Amino acid sequence: MGRWEPGADARLREAALRLFEERGYDQATVADVAAVAGLTPRTFFRHYADKREVLFAGWPELRAHVVGALVAAPSSSSPLEAVAAALDAAAQWLDFDRDFSRRRQAIIESSSELRERELIKFADLSDALDQGLRGRGVTEPRARIAAETGVTVLRVAFQEWLDDPQGRSLREHVTLTLSEVADVARPGSRRRPG
Amino acid sequence: MGRWEPGADARLREAALRLFEERGYDQATVADVAAVAGLTPRTFFRHYADKREVLFAGWPELRAHVVGALVAAPSSSSPLEAVAAALDAAAQWLDFDRDFSRRRQAIIESSSELRERELIKFADLSDALDQGLRGRGVTEPRARIAAETGVTVLRVAFQEWLDDPQGRSLREHVTLTLSEVADVARPGSRRRPG
Repeated sequence: MGRWEPGADARLREAALRLFEERGYDQATVADVAAVAGLTPRTFFRHYADKREVLFAGWPELRAHVVGALVAAPSSSSPLEAVAAALDAAAQWLDFDRDFSRRRQAIIESSSELRERELIKFADLSDALDQGLRGRGVTEPRARIAAETGVTVLRVAFQEWLDDPQGRSLREHVTLTLSEVADVARPGSRRRPG
Repeated sequence: MGRWEPGADARLREAALRLFEERGYDQATVADVAAVAGLTPRTFFRHYADKREVLFAGWPELRAHVVGALVAAPSSSSPLEAVAAALDAAAQWLDFDRDFSRRRQAIIESSSELRERELIKFADLSDALDQGLRGRGVTEPRARIAAETGVTVLRVAFQEWLDDPQGRSLREHVTLTLSEVADVARPGSRRRPG
């Protein structure tokens, strides 16, 4: 099998998703995933550092895209407005296949190993946003707060999007969640009736 | 060495802190830590599930204390007010030894394994707050947002407290950070001048 396998990463991703669903994440090995994709474990490891990473393909690109949008936000933007621009970019990037995202998320929820890897990815994204905000002249602790709030919004909006029977877009859910955050954080805010 | 070792957990904690500082976290083994404490590895594992856990001693008690304060907050409290009561309880619990906390935090920052364990602990605390809020009748996504915001406030305030040359209390830093969050989340908020 040659070194260059066109579409190998996508084939591995699809094989992994199917196998993890059928056998459970813990039971399926890298060798199994590679075999289902018609590839060798060696090829798997040329694309992904370990079994977990196949579910986080494209993360570095997403991170770069999101940070790029933060950096490009108008200089007049407040920290949270710059973060909101970054989240909008993330939403456009991620809003491609709700069914795929649902299947992937169900697998992540099924394994503590995968939930941990997801925590690390989001902590890494928060660090990147924090650094981007400091590059915009925002000082601590404000930069960290805005970065962490951004990650919270993205995670909550993503879950709401997956569960939404009305099928609204992820961008719409990001906007809704941002206003929910403003409402929750407002001093003296009271619980909404019923 | 008998099964019952009075003060064994505190001795192990202090020995671990010293050894991790001197040799580095990765280099020091459980056997080393136990030897410095004058105990056996067996005794170590009666107190802590693994090497990492010795730095998170008391976490279940903290978690229970914090959730207890959330549950006990007046029923008229907004979600974030209930979370603020929980954070105040956490601050009182944690504000006992800034020097110890600084040493512990420096060790955690030195090891990706420990940073991961810390992420998991905070995610667990967020889940507990989320559940507590739902028990108070708060619906999703509001409960999750308030819980995540609470964890962000606690982490940021803790860091500010460790770094504060003025030596203000952790409770004071929690209050300051809560108002910073309200300011960051306010729609149309602008960056503060200079």
